[in-house]
Amino acid sequence: MNLHAIKNDRIENTTLWKAMPKVVEEFATVALIASGTQGEVARSVALALTETSVRGVDSHGIRLLLHYAKVVKTGRINREPRISIKQTGRGTAIVDADNGFGHHASFFAIDRILELAQETGIAAVAVINSSHFGAAGCYVLRAAEKGYVALGVCNSDSFVLLHNGLHPFHGTNPLAFAAPVPGSRPFLVDMATSVIPWNRVQDLMNEGLPLPADASVDSNGEPVLDPAQSAALLPLGGPHYGYKGAALAGIAEVLSAVLTGMPFCSRLLSMAGPDLSTHRRLGHFFIVLDPRCFISQQCYDDGIVAYLHDLREQASRPGTRVMAPGDREWSVEEERKRDGIPFRPQLKMDLDDLADRLGIDPLQYL
Amino acid sequence: MNLHAIKNDRIENTTLWKAMPKVVEEFATVALIASGTQGEVARSVALALTETSVRGVDSHGIRLLLHYAKVVKTGRINREPRISIKQTGRGTAIVDADNGFGHHASFFAIDRILELAQETGIAAVAVINSSHFGAAGCYVLRAAEKGYVALGVCNSDSFVLLHNGLHPFHGTNPLAFAAPVPGSRPFLVDMATSVIPWNRVQDLMNEGLPLPADASVDSNGEPVLDPAQSAALLPLGGPHYGYKGAALAGIAEVLSAVLTGMPFCSRLLSMAGPDLSTHRRLGHFFIVLDPRCFISQQCYDDGIVAYLHDLREQASRPGTRVMAPGDREWSVEEERKRDGIPFRPQLKMDLDDLADRLGIDPLQYL
Repeated sequence: MNLHAIKNDRIENTTLWKAMPKVVEEFATVALIASGTQGEVARSVALALTETSVRGVDSHGIRLLLHYAKVVKTGRINREPRISIKQTGRGTAIVDADNGFGHHASFFAIDRILELAQETGIAAVAVINSSHFGAAGCYVLRAAEKGYVALGVCNSDSFVLLHNGLHPFHGTNPLAFAAPVPGSRPFLVDMATSVIPWNRVQDLMNEGLPLPADASVDSNGEPVLDPAQSAALLPLGGPHYGYKGAALAGIAEVLSAVLTGMPFCSRLLSMAGPDLSTHRRLGHFFIVLDPRCFISQQCYDDGIVAYLHDLREQASRPGTRVMAPGDREWSVEEERKRDGIPFRPQLKMDLDDLADRLGIDPLQYL
Repeated sequence: MNLHAIKNDRIENTTLWKAMPKVVEEFATVALIASGTQGEVARSVALALTETSVRGVDSHGIRLLLHYAKVVKTGRINREPRISIKQTGRGTAIVDADNGFGHHASFFAIDRILELAQETGIAAVAVINSSHFGAAGCYVLRAAEKGYVALGVCNSDSFVLLHNGLHPFHGTNPLAFAAPVPGSRPFLVDMATSVIPWNRVQDLMNEGLPLPADASVDSNGEPVLDPAQSAALLPLGGPHYGYKGAALAGIAEVLSAVLTGMPFCSRLLSMAGPDLSTHRRLGHFFIVLDPRCFISQQCYDDGIVAYLHDLREQASRPGTRVMAPGDREWSVEEERKRDGIPFRPQLKMDLDDLADRLGIDPLQYL
């Protein structure tokens, strides 16, 4: 497994099974509806999963369909949520997801605060009573594609040590940020505030490979290289500078749990269960900014293009290149939009099983 | 030098020379006025420097007085700025610092957007034509002390490699965040997006100590432990995960340079010179949020207290303890408010020289 593959837990493109994005999105929509999800909600979830797979973030892509199709049946997810919004200031709102899928509530929330920001220049929304929303990048991208700069955070259940800590406390608490780039896909940051994502541990275990050093600890809080012994992750910055990663996780926690009144990391029900019937009451938090309230569109466009140009022109270590945030994702997107989304054999089998259980047509591969 | 001292480049409290914060602030004010600074501006800069030293962030504290007293004379800093504000949306504004001190413009900017946020719930300000503003934490703290959650960023001249890069590109681009905590000092993040701050390199060189591993490179981009050979810093995340630190630096760059129309990192004049007469045209960017637009004050208070309580109760590695962001600073603050701010002998000599040159009374030590 090379570093390129490791970075985003991305499936190697040499796999045998591939399907085109539109076909994957339709399959996911049908599977979610067959699992009891409302049509409009199913379309939001399927869109988020497919777009995420297309960007190569396979950990948060179509593989999550298996999980979602399960938890919408077990009662964790409200199948027929009545999403509501309350505007609380000229630029602020609270969206109540009514314990439905977080993806749908988050797209809804972003679209609403983009309207508020037309008047205020900046707007924020707290999403309450929500659930797992997939990749945080989906929602800031929605804003960037409409010309806005956006920031989004969410917390998650405990997987990550505090700096100097022995046991998991924070989740991998993602931080996402996007800004439009004229004539190109957006500047996109979508990162866990841990050294590596939890999914990496599972992937390396499946591949029989060791963990990278300084990324994970066992149940006694001791550094570990064997994925099977891994009990928690270190915060970004590792053993010496992990107070920075823990602080970033804390920012996500303050915005997405404290400001929303939802449970914080260590009080969240585990995503993996065993309880799959109780609502998890996740919170999310998004901010959108209109660049034109700070600078003319032309100057913004010139500025971000010049910055990214200078960045990409930087000399790099032999055999590597420097990239702007999102460059890797957009390169994978181009490839996968053209050639299809790859599926590992196990995922293909699991999706075939799902289709069989739901009585729907299986996903059509190329 | 123990880790406690290293973390913030903090001066050991065992030093012989100490002065009380109020005395330091008054001395800095008088020194800046004697250097040609307007009274109101001098008071803002002196307040920021003193508060930063009191928190133990000595790299960005009173030692910078020497630099500021110089650059206000050499013409880099406009001695008599006419700060102006333009409101551009109901929740957005641009503050033109007119090339004066960044500290004064930033306090001004925060105070104004706190007014806007009373109506909008969230507000943002771009500060343009500014200069070095000291520690980013000062301005988000001002907001948190008034009950608001705040985020602040700034860029700086090139000191930090991109991930896979060979030469410095980004600055140490700080990211600051603060949130009020009832009955206590705020939750406070104020971090460079590099592994270590540049000042650490200079401190270790002065102490004859090696650099930590995986933090710095020489002029060929090769890892280096000798501070004298250090030419650049690695982004947070180090050699393997530095794309995360570089992405955070990029967020600071997009907000504080692209959105403000000010020069980005690699196009900024060096803070250290040799040109000390040209305005550097730095940009800063701040966002403030009213928590009460998302949750009742009581629920916010209960939530942040419970989160910080649970965090601080976490088991820690032997000989260490887990801390919330800001805990270390507030513990130093308590000590220094009581016992005074410590000064290294060299800094005392330099400040005595400064007083002599300016014809003012020297700083009175305890």
